[in-house]
Amino acid sequence: MALIVMKFGGSSVGTPERMMNVARRIIARQQEGNQIVVVVSAMGDTTDDLIDLSKKINSNPSAREMDMLLTTGEQVSVSLLSMAIGSINGQAKSFTGWQAGIKTEAVHSKARISSIDPQRIFNAVDNGNVAIVAGFQGVTEEGDITTLGRGGSDTTAVALAAALKADLCEIYTDVDGIYSTDPRIVRVARKLNEISYDEMLELANLGAAVLHPRAVEYAKHYHVKLVVRSSFTQQPGTLVEEDADMEQGVVVRGIAYDKSVARISILGVPDRAGQLANVFTSLANAGIDVDIIVQSGVLHGSADFSFTVGLDDSDKAVEVVQSIQSQIGYRECEVEKNLVKISIVGAGMVSNPGVAAKMFDTIAKMGISIKMVSTSEIKVSCVVELDRFKEIIAELHTAYGLDTATEAFVGGPSDRR
Amino acid sequence: MALIVMKFGGSSVGTPERMMNVARRIIARQQEGNQIVVVVSAMGDTTDDLIDLSKKINSNPSAREMDMLLTTGEQVSVSLLSMAIGSINGQAKSFTGWQAGIKTEAVHSKARISSIDPQRIFNAVDNGNVAIVAGFQGVTEEGDITTLGRGGSDTTAVALAAALKADLCEIYTDVDGIYSTDPRIVRVARKLNEISYDEMLELANLGAAVLHPRAVEYAKHYHVKLVVRSSFTQQPGTLVEEDADMEQGVVVRGIAYDKSVARISILGVPDRAGQLANVFTSLANAGIDVDIIVQSGVLHGSADFSFTVGLDDSDKAVEVVQSIQSQIGYRECEVEKNLVKISIVGAGMVSNPGVAAKMFDTIAKMGISIKMVSTSEIKVSCVVELDRFKEIIAELHTAYGLDTATEAFVGGPSDRR
Repeated sequence: MALIVMKFGGSSVGTPERMMNVARRIIARQQEGNQIVVVVSAMGDTTDDLIDLSKKINSNPSAREMDMLLTTGEQVSVSLLSMAIGSINGQAKSFTGWQAGIKTEAVHSKARISSIDPQRIFNAVDNGNVAIVAGFQGVTEEGDITTLGRGGSDTTAVALAAALKADLCEIYTDVDGIYSTDPRIVRVARKLNEISYDEMLELANLGAAVLHPRAVEYAKHYHVKLVVRSSFTQQPGTLVEEDADMEQGVVVRGIAYDKSVARISILGVPDRAGQLANVFTSLANAGIDVDIIVQSGVLHGSADFSFTVGLDDSDKAVEVVQSIQSQIGYRECEVEKNLVKISIVGAGMVSNPGVAAKMFDTIAKMGISIKMVSTSEIKVSCVVELDRFKEIIAELHTAYGLDTATEAFVGGPSDRR
Repeated sequence: MALIVMKFGGSSVGTPERMMNVARRIIARQQEGNQIVVVVSAMGDTTDDLIDLSKKINSNPSAREMDMLLTTGEQVSVSLLSMAIGSINGQAKSFTGWQAGIKTEAVHSKARISSIDPQRIFNAVDNGNVAIVAGFQGVTEEGDITTLGRGGSDTTAVALAAALKADLCEIYTDVDGIYSTDPRIVRVARKLNEISYDEMLELANLGAAVLHPRAVEYAKHYHVKLVVRSSFTQQPGTLVEEDADMEQGVVVRGIAYDKSVARISILGVPDRAGQLANVFTSLANAGIDVDIIVQSGVLHGSADFSFTVGLDDSDKAVEVVQSIQSQIGYRECEVEKNLVKISIVGAGMVSNPGVAAKMFDTIAKMGISIKMVSTSEIKVSCVVELDRFKEIIAELHTAYGLDTATEAFVGGPSDRR
């Protein structure tokens, strides 16, 4: 008997009808002889509606109270899904994060899971129940309710799968797997049958937005076998595991992009020890994640450098940089916003020289200038102006041989592939 | 420094604007030099909306899951009210039932509070916070979320006041106190300045619907001083305590009524030992509360008896009675539905003979027949047909000298009294 964790996102349970579909799907999986633990997000727009409601009362509410508010969304989902299973004669028990033993660090709005005590969940499934756990939430040692941040339900699912030593963690979503790139941008994008954790991590981090990157990290660390599949079709989806089969000749697995990128440039920085550390420590203290960092050579005792941050963080980042102007003694700070980061991702890249060159060449031939570059063992990223990004992705998709003969298909109740 | 528990019902926090009013009211009370603990219900129609949503999924959901669902309503309220206080620079912390240490017995949908560990609440107020506690909910020893049933937020407030040894428990509602009778029925009803627990208990139980009877019992048992007052006006409200001052010449304090009454008659019951016990044990096992019981004398070896139950329970009660027909051997079972129970209530009654007689006489003079009578030390109840009940209440109100010169006034932002 296998133990399977099934995770359903908010759109999969957005209406009572969809909730019933999910219930039937869960029971079918149980009747195949599996023990089932379900993780579920808040229904449809619930989280956004709660945020809107809170804004009518306080434009800058405390993070503790926001967590208290938002976690009700998942609590509603788990109880209703449990009732849905009950209505088709299944047996289910719902659990909030704290009831499921999910302990987190004492940070509100983006806590990390510190431990899971799965005893109540084991008891529930051992007694024949489907255990339904609220995603996205946990509790501190002191008993305060926390959230894991947006997309945190994926992390809940994977962390539970690890704690329960589940045989499989299935992420049900509104697309039928991981694609070579966003099918809304490139219609000939192809669905991948398999992908490695590292590749998935790059694709998720870079905007493929199907699976939360923290969840993939967690899955990699605890060797949780993941499947991403559609909650609307019976397609097998994409398997994410340690060593994804290398398809014949595949070097680049997929192309990701991130439109919420801003570049901040600090010009004329006097060449003193610790200048870079000073800037990035200040940014880190302000909770701002920095992605690509590029430093020019030192000329006449001063250097320029630039870095990218999320678009939402860019104004705050500029403030932080300005606040340490007197310490750093730089000449000028600029911010540039209409940018996109495009990345090619593939575990085969490391042993295939010339892969990066092909990317630069393809973009250059389009007459587009590359503003920043970053490389790792399994990806190459270029930051360019936003306006022709779809065209660039389509060109790269063709250049790396990723196009399929038929059009890509995303979501929907019928199946065209 | 006094410790005050303030309880606000769902209509008092039904909109963001009302939530802000309540926040200002709380802060004003704190600034008078008091420590404040607030208990709040779900906003407006939230509970009913959640019930409607659940019905679309399961017409008969498990009570455990229903509690899981409904308790989100109060969790939303406490977090928003805390944010509202934050937005006017107050300092507040919200708590669910389990966070506030409210333990209940393991019964869903109508659990009783078994203990309260108020340590976290004390810590919060000692640090200058307004502590905001979700009403209506608790947690079992096993960690399951329970509810105290409708009106349970009053009980939460009083039980917390007892556990915290609060100086006062203020119940804010949409009326400005307890009236001699329902002012919607009798426009000359008068607001009472004081009332005893026992009187309040009878008025609450009998439909005055301002304060949950369980809360009054709790207040009586733990000597919690209660005030019922309007959340929309600054009127002092009605004080509920052990020995309410006897106003000169007041024998009857108020007149209550209950329109959700059904009478079930069992006719031709063979005179055997244990017959009554058999019937009422069966009803109790089915969770049906019986109110008035009347048995006729035994004639030719068989008796008739009748009892009242809540209208909602009446069909189920008939089923229970029919299910034991063969054991009891009665001839016939009848149910009558269009009834009202009207009660006069007053601690002065016990030492004033003739009070009950005046009630019977007043009703008789109207040409209305009394179907059942029940008396206690502080009340007399009559069950009559529903159609002229307003007229009866008005007549009794005048007969017992309860009319005021001016018209009664309920709720509203301005003050006419």
